[in-house]
Amino acid sequence: METSAILHRPDSEYAYLYKEDEMHIRLRTKKGDVAKVGIISGDPYLHGVKKWYLDDAPMELLASTDIHDYWMIATGAEFKRLSYGFHIVGTDGIEVFYGDRGVFPYEEKYLEPANSFFRMPYFQEIDRFKSPDWVKETVWYQIFPERFANGDTSNDPEGTLPWDSKEHPTRDDFYGGDLQGVIDNLDYLVDLGINGIYFCPVFKATSNHKYDTTDYFEIDPDFGDKKTFKKLVDEAHKRGIRIMLDAVFNHMGMLSYQWEDVVKNEADSKYADWFHIHQFPVKLDESLTTEELENVGNVPYDTFAFTGHMPKLNTANPEVQDYLLEIAAYWIREFDIDAWRLDVANEVDHHFWKRFYQVTTDLKEDFYILGEIWHSSQSWLQGDEFHAVMNYAFTETIEDFFMKKRITAHKMVAGLNEQLMLYRQQTNEVMFNMLDSHDTARILTISAGNKDTVKSALAFTFAQNGSPCIYYGTEIGMDGFDDPDCRKCMVWDEAKQDLKMLAFTKELIAFRKEHQKLFSYGQLDWFDIRDEERVVGFKRILGEETLIAYFNQGEEDLELTLAEKPEGLLGHLAFVDNQLLSIKQNGFAIFKDR
Amino acid sequence: METSAILHRPDSEYAYLYKEDEMHIRLRTKKGDVAKVGIISGDPYLHGVKKWYLDDAPMELLASTDIHDYWMIATGAEFKRLSYGFHIVGTDGIEVFYGDRGVFPYEEKYLEPANSFFRMPYFQEIDRFKSPDWVKETVWYQIFPERFANGDTSNDPEGTLPWDSKEHPTRDDFYGGDLQGVIDNLDYLVDLGINGIYFCPVFKATSNHKYDTTDYFEIDPDFGDKKTFKKLVDEAHKRGIRIMLDAVFNHMGMLSYQWEDVVKNEADSKYADWFHIHQFPVKLDESLTTEELENVGNVPYDTFAFTGHMPKLNTANPEVQDYLLEIAAYWIREFDIDAWRLDVANEVDHHFWKRFYQVTTDLKEDFYILGEIWHSSQSWLQGDEFHAVMNYAFTETIEDFFMKKRITAHKMVAGLNEQLMLYRQQTNEVMFNMLDSHDTARILTISAGNKDTVKSALAFTFAQNGSPCIYYGTEIGMDGFDDPDCRKCMVWDEAKQDLKMLAFTKELIAFRKEHQKLFSYGQLDWFDIRDEERVVGFKRILGEETLIAYFNQGEEDLELTLAEKPEGLLGHLAFVDNQLLSIKQNGFAIFKDR
Repeated sequence: METSAILHRPDSEYAYLYKEDEMHIRLRTKKGDVAKVGIISGDPYLHGVKKWYLDDAPMELLASTDIHDYWMIATGAEFKRLSYGFHIVGTDGIEVFYGDRGVFPYEEKYLEPANSFFRMPYFQEIDRFKSPDWVKETVWYQIFPERFANGDTSNDPEGTLPWDSKEHPTRDDFYGGDLQGVIDNLDYLVDLGINGIYFCPVFKATSNHKYDTTDYFEIDPDFGDKKTFKKLVDEAHKRGIRIMLDAVFNHMGMLSYQWEDVVKNEADSKYADWFHIHQFPVKLDESLTTEELENVGNVPYDTFAFTGHMPKLNTANPEVQDYLLEIAAYWIREFDIDAWRLDVANEVDHHFWKRFYQVTTDLKEDFYILGEIWHSSQSWLQGDEFHAVMNYAFTETIEDFFMKKRITAHKMVAGLNEQLMLYRQQTNEVMFNMLDSHDTARILTISAGNKDTVKSALAFTFAQNGSPCIYYGTEIGMDGFDDPDCRKCMVWDEAKQDLKMLAFTKELIAFRKEHQKLFSYGQLDWFDIRDEERVVGFKRILGEETLIAYFNQGEEDLELTLAEKPEGLLGHLAFVDNQLLSIKQNGFAIFKDR
Repeated sequence: METSAILHRPDSEYAYLYKEDEMHIRLRTKKGDVAKVGIISGDPYLHGVKKWYLDDAPMELLASTDIHDYWMIATGAEFKRLSYGFHIVGTDGIEVFYGDRGVFPYEEKYLEPANSFFRMPYFQEIDRFKSPDWVKETVWYQIFPERFANGDTSNDPEGTLPWDSKEHPTRDDFYGGDLQGVIDNLDYLVDLGINGIYFCPVFKATSNHKYDTTDYFEIDPDFGDKKTFKKLVDEAHKRGIRIMLDAVFNHMGMLSYQWEDVVKNEADSKYADWFHIHQFPVKLDESLTTEELENVGNVPYDTFAFTGHMPKLNTANPEVQDYLLEIAAYWIREFDIDAWRLDVANEVDHHFWKRFYQVTTDLKEDFYILGEIWHSSQSWLQGDEFHAVMNYAFTETIEDFFMKKRITAHKMVAGLNEQLMLYRQQTNEVMFNMLDSHDTARILTISAGNKDTVKSALAFTFAQNGSPCIYYGTEIGMDGFDDPDCRKCMVWDEAKQDLKMLAFTKELIAFRKEHQKLFSYGQLDWFDIRDEERVVGFKRILGEETLIAYFNQGEEDLELTLAEKPEGLLGHLAFVDNQLLSIKQNGFAIFKDR
């Protein structure tokens, strides 16, 4: 047995409360190396009295990657306290005990010391990771406000270009998109079926993307005003649509009054400690173009990336904390928003996010906090900072298989399972799964224009844990390279819309909502993974309900003979002839297992 | 290469700020499996521009256990942001890249995606684990107040027994020990050389151990009053001795006014939600003896262990939090204590401890917080809850080798290294290393009465990271089995004291203080580990200063021929004849490497 590969970490995603009285325990071993794992557990204070360490209960194989197996058990504890260890039986017949002091031969003398066991000292409900149920029921729609719809030409900024007048928008273009444009199209979104909108920033800022905030307490005048925003939230809520705003708290715009005060008064500014300044002066050359500002290089203050017009905020300063937290509270209290998406969330400190969690969830118990983090995020997802992150690490793996075709089916499954094992189950249930965004090329472009691939990848993503998001325009077949090209004007001319893609997207959203509980909570069983043929089969199982899914990314047709004619089918390039199911290249089928 | 054994966890003890601008990065691999590891790192926003991923810097082999090697590097980042991954070369010649998305062949195409790297997104000083310097300079002395010295017979409780009148004290005995007794003997402690006292509880409570608090705002009248306590702190401080009190916040005593109110008024009590009550009534049978109360079994409320007279507090209740935090603050503010030791700290929730950290360190910046946790404690030692834990997991490994003789020298080293690798370096520097306490048998008894073994184990412990603690009476040769036998009256009659042990302890403490920086910060190199002969050799190295240590637990004499006559020797059963050093069974020698 490869004991060096055995891993457990107490009080983490390997050992956590899933429900108030239900604890999940996971164990990692080398793939294929272990025949079975038993959990040895009992009350820490009854270890010697009851000798519970003489028994164990079987754990299940939960998931595998290319190098690891993950085992799992859901368990309780009569007195809300649990000591536990693992009885591991190798495929080579070797048996070991693994506990808090390491790996030992599976012999009674190594089980007798009470301190050899891992501990969940007490089931602390206050420390349990909790996530809002409505997120699991949500299909998101991401809107880049400057480019979705122009509902009010009276607020168009000077130099606004005619809608969709350029094949490729540039970094400085303005097209007049605004909040009224969103209100005007809420019924379009209802018809599409989505029930959550994630808005890129709407607060006062200079750029078209508004990530360089100058006033967090004002709606950008190009987008409308607070009255319009209030109406937008109310009208959305009436239609069962939740609203998520984008909080850019890592940095401010250089034209904010705080930074301007620092530029002018330097060390004497009362905002001098709001930023990370190495030396004065901090004034930039006024002749710099937007392009130059975006990559200004080394300046005497910390910035977001190397963007000179985005000085980094000092969130360790209590004044800055209070200021930002009041913003966080203001838009919940006054406008009843449902969620904050946190820009560059990983570069802001944990202390601040813990306060942020407290303030926002105190105001609205089922508030949703979504961090923008592209890498492993365990330390932000312990239950007192974010509920989820933008799940690029997960969705990029899907893209690597479906769109970029650079990994095998097994490698995709391995990558997805590895990501799932980084977090608690309740975290995975509310992860934000988008295949593209304002920060990436569009999926149709990543798919080299192949809409069948797009449909398959979307359906695959919708069938996973987590709440899926559609980037505006995906549903009508928009394309675009990396930023700023992925921020084209929404196509409203039906003649230019891909209406088949629209119909497909509606069907997919309806299917997701119909089976939401299964997709949110159901077990995931990969059961037919074929690297050569580039085929992926999996089941989602919840109680009596099972859905079977097949995705064919190979060049050959996939021919399946089923026990019965498939029922409740959602598919693309999938053809049924009684019990025969044929799936063409880039096609898929999801159907009920009867 | 055994890729399944490779482990790194971002933003944890594997990747943390040691100093404001210095980050430590660790990696775990299978023991003996890897020839070298290079760190590939650079600014996340310059990944594509500078192509820093084409270079790497060598990591050092930091420590090994019986199954793992740990690699380490200290590094910085020009812009306080770091992307990093590992270039691992196996002893089999295989080279892999290990990053945030797993293990890949070491080929440029796998290094090109920026998202394949781990991230330290920003060097957040506010999130950095900080520990008070004075703790590293401290040698602790633990006092069980009822048994140290009776300085004021006027406060002796009814039925007080004559000092030291029983060979084996029972659970209900009182001997009249008090705070005046400690004041009277402060100069004894100064002479001994210790500079920190850890007091078991001193607040009002019924039992002799006072872990069943009835009033946290009062000194137990058997021990004295606040005036005496104030004098004790002041007199200690005058002598350079810090004071640590014991906070019992997991549970209260059944005679506290809060619990008595609950017993009487049941659901109507304003304290009903201060505890975890399943149903009423909660009154216990008054005829229960202390012994019976200690193991009352299943009662309709949560208790510490199964002790009916210690109902568990509901620390998720903000009222309870505020009450306990005011206690925490009160004794700092009014009496200037330097540290809190937290009883049963693992069974109290993280939310509470985070507030506790804030309140106490706000009042006194270099305050020390020590949790009683016997198992792996990573989740409490992230820098915002405790500074250290009572390091039983570490010291038990020392005892297993020296005293219980049930593990080999290599297994001890493996166990110690494994514990060190659970925590950040700055955490290890302030860990609380005691070989025994009021909760264990005394080390002399664990050593079956062999004082040579005791001396060796003490010296070994003093030569490690962390701040060592002596349990009262160890220095004069006291023994005792498990609680309550380990709580005998301090022996003050010189005729009954082991004066050789006293002289040895003084010498050891002086030696520790003389070389404190080396022991706190110095590198630890195990270099001569002999299982057959039960010999352990190690070096502590800091800059130009190196100490060499040898411990001989074998039956044969250990004969060493050194380059020069050893200088600055601390030893026991160690004999020097010019360059010849002879260490007898149970002896040791620590000397300068010139």
